[in-house]
Amino acid sequence: MRCSLFFLSCFALFIFVSSKSIIGQNGAMFEERYFTQFVDHFNMETFGTTTYQQRYLITEQYWTKGSGPIFFYTGNEGNIEGFQKASGLLVDLAAKMGAMVVFAEHRFYGTSLPFGNNTFMHKNIGLLTVEQAMADYAYLIEHLKESYNATHVPVIAFGGSYGGQLAAYMRMKYPNLIAGSLAASAPLYWITGHGDRHGFWKSVTEIFGKQGSACVDRIKEGFKDTNDFAAKGKFTEITAAFHTCEPVTSETLDHLYEWIRNSFTDLAMMNYPYPSDFLAPLPGHPVKAACEMITSAPTAIEGLAAGAGLFYNGTSSHETDKVSLQCFDIMKEYVECADPTGCGLGNDALAWNYQACTEIVLPGGTNNITDMFPVLPFTLEMRDNYCVKNVGVKPRNRWLSINFWSENLDKASNIIFSNGDLDPWRDGGILTDLSPTLKALTVVGGAHHFDLRGSHKDDPQSVIDVREKEGAIIMDWVNQHWSKIYLPDIHITL
Amino acid sequence: MRCSLFFLSCFALFIFVSSKSIIGQNGAMFEERYFTQFVDHFNMETFGTTTYQQRYLITEQYWTKGSGPIFFYTGNEGNIEGFQKASGLLVDLAAKMGAMVVFAEHRFYGTSLPFGNNTFMHKNIGLLTVEQAMADYAYLIEHLKESYNATHVPVIAFGGSYGGQLAAYMRMKYPNLIAGSLAASAPLYWITGHGDRHGFWKSVTEIFGKQGSACVDRIKEGFKDTNDFAAKGKFTEITAAFHTCEPVTSETLDHLYEWIRNSFTDLAMMNYPYPSDFLAPLPGHPVKAACEMITSAPTAIEGLAAGAGLFYNGTSSHETDKVSLQCFDIMKEYVECADPTGCGLGNDALAWNYQACTEIVLPGGTNNITDMFPVLPFTLEMRDNYCVKNVGVKPRNRWLSINFWSENLDKASNIIFSNGDLDPWRDGGILTDLSPTLKALTVVGGAHHFDLRGSHKDDPQSVIDVREKEGAIIMDWVNQHWSKIYLPDIHITL
Repeated sequence: MRCSLFFLSCFALFIFVSSKSIIGQNGAMFEERYFTQFVDHFNMETFGTTTYQQRYLITEQYWTKGSGPIFFYTGNEGNIEGFQKASGLLVDLAAKMGAMVVFAEHRFYGTSLPFGNNTFMHKNIGLLTVEQAMADYAYLIEHLKESYNATHVPVIAFGGSYGGQLAAYMRMKYPNLIAGSLAASAPLYWITGHGDRHGFWKSVTEIFGKQGSACVDRIKEGFKDTNDFAAKGKFTEITAAFHTCEPVTSETLDHLYEWIRNSFTDLAMMNYPYPSDFLAPLPGHPVKAACEMITSAPTAIEGLAAGAGLFYNGTSSHETDKVSLQCFDIMKEYVECADPTGCGLGNDALAWNYQACTEIVLPGGTNNITDMFPVLPFTLEMRDNYCVKNVGVKPRNRWLSINFWSENLDKASNIIFSNGDLDPWRDGGILTDLSPTLKALTVVGGAHHFDLRGSHKDDPQSVIDVREKEGAIIMDWVNQHWSKIYLPDIHITL
Repeated sequence: MRCSLFFLSCFALFIFVSSKSIIGQNGAMFEERYFTQFVDHFNMETFGTTTYQQRYLITEQYWTKGSGPIFFYTGNEGNIEGFQKASGLLVDLAAKMGAMVVFAEHRFYGTSLPFGNNTFMHKNIGLLTVEQAMADYAYLIEHLKESYNATHVPVIAFGGSYGGQLAAYMRMKYPNLIAGSLAASAPLYWITGHGDRHGFWKSVTEIFGKQGSACVDRIKEGFKDTNDFAAKGKFTEITAAFHTCEPVTSETLDHLYEWIRNSFTDLAMMNYPYPSDFLAPLPGHPVKAACEMITSAPTAIEGLAAGAGLFYNGTSSHETDKVSLQCFDIMKEYVECADPTGCGLGNDALAWNYQACTEIVLPGGTNNITDMFPVLPFTLEMRDNYCVKNVGVKPRNRWLSINFWSENLDKASNIIFSNGDLDPWRDGGILTDLSPTLKALTVVGGAHHFDLRGSHKDDPQSVIDVREKEGAIIMDWVNQHWSKIYLPDIHITL
């Protein structure tokens, strides 16, 4: 099984069974519903009145009817059920603040396919944009407020990663609808084309380095040894070491390297202190687990293979010996695309690759100077060529920067930018306060949007503290909303 | 000759001659240029890399190179040359503040036709939206700042009427690009579907009432007498009284009424104290002139005909006897469309009618209760039917309200909302301050975006005062921009 990365596109691989109720954090019962949306919010001609069914999950069980806030998760690149499971914070806070909780699925992902089986045809896929998704969310919020006779209640947007960008952008572009946003691990600078595109890989390397320099040294050694084998034509040895199902050849060597790089990237992103299954079933502290495997193996190549296999191995029980019990189908487990941090298979991967070929700028390649990986360049020009050839579009690198303010984010208000200081995406995000209402919070030791997860007995104090701060800020927004605009006698406390 | 109304769509009737230089207020020399824009900013698939040439007028002659602000007029529904002529305030202020001045033409108007002769075909016209036009402006601003090595200078948006909405919306949606906006006579509430849609006609009636109740009474009497003639089948008398080229019939009677209503609407909007030629060549104080004709005529019908004829008569010399020297082609001079305040002929009218059938909500009909006009209803349902039948689209009445904040405009900042208290559009706009940075200014006795016009020897003190306040506020924005963000040693004074 292969799931993708940050901005992951893999939820189609979790078998989806349509059901009326889905259990969330603390046993919250979510209902699955669909809302009728225009397929095109920006052109009323081509698709005229064509509509589609957008999925969302909703629970009212904590809601203080008529006055409680609405917590609205702006779904990102995958089946919304995965984000609901990985974002228990919304339910934890809803229970304290009397909120309704909604998880809205992003168009073209999960079951929210605007044109059914024809969704990914050229004539249709152009409707997959950040702007269209945001307009969907705006209409859905309006609908919810009206249908619940709650037109005056504040709405707080939540999101992680690309979903965190969307949460921030919703506050920026629709402050009429959104009182404030929690943008967790959202690399708003990188994604708009600003900052060092190699910073991502530098951070992955640093995260592995936290387990001791021996781990990084052994990884580099493993890559070097593999390279030496390849230079001597010893591909049989490489194939054996990495337990690949198909023989590794000079043509697939780079793919093998990317498959390894992808594993380490995901392990770093999902480096939670307890077992999780967001991108894949993983043990707690997976980077530590990988480094133990890497440094304790008889040879550097075997260590590299064992560490990489941890992610693809499909177990959260840390049974390292399983690696030797199977082979890896590296062409399916890692799929090259316009996102060098990795793509998977299936519809969600198609959709994400399209976004990575149009509006969204993702990290560059590795250089073996600032990172521990082989030299695998991915310039903007290479991306252009890939996208024109494989996807039939040319990226518009400047658009998100123009449309979403980029280095002028200080013009916004009421946004929390949270980041884990051990998340590879960290340096693409906002790490210091931009104004009194634009707060940057850091989860010390935290991985990718760790703060969005529901409370857990093994949570470190750092994430508990950040979640408490987030709750307090959100409570302030809610109270400000009521005191400034409508009914000053409504006041909530945690 | 017929030109249309507020939101007027008539500039195609001013014969356009492409030239390199255009003379503006105070002899400012504008250069005409074109900029390459994507035809579709929100779908990279359907039209791929298709581009078009957007026209803009620019003058640098007052610009303090590298540090002076850019004054950017967000063009509205017509040839940009007309707006440049009618908006001399930008040059007047530029001379004082060292600004570059740019007038950008709105896509699908003037010569900025994305598909040449095929621009208005169904497959293409869907790209005519508020959002696409704003994205054009955003790209053009980025281009100007980069090409002039002025990436840090503040940009102030200006606009009148629909252009005023666009100026406000640019500040709301692109505060990264726009330091502040002057939205003159912009009916931001009505246009998003809020407020009393009959208020427009009530205001037209009140403006005529300012000339004494006798004028309004005589107009009502004229309509009643015409109606009585019609009831008796005396269409020959009606035709003779109104000097129409074609006989008036029971089928065209309502059209005649709309033709009259349209004249009075335009006279009220263009009720400047000196001769002007924005919508049509008109004398100074045209409402006063019309009322004099209306009340001094031998009969009420003749008065109504003379007053209505003033607008269509094509003279600014107030030669009332000219009415008897010609006939009126009422089917061409007034064209029914989705905008009950009037449409003209030509491409600009086609474009405006499309916008009035998609995103933009315009006033309803007249009711003869709150206004002086015959009962000519125009409900949203009638608009739906008209648009589906004639334009092939169904309006989306809620979209602008959702997308442009409507009754939550207080979330914006740095916008001046100016209105003339004798402008029919006044009650659709923002008439009181919404916050310390959202200022409402009133031109006492002022008609439609009077403040945007260049200084004139016959200006009343009220408009002089408002323009001074606008200049001071804009100067504050410019200085705030430099002091907060970049070079604190740049400070300008008027």
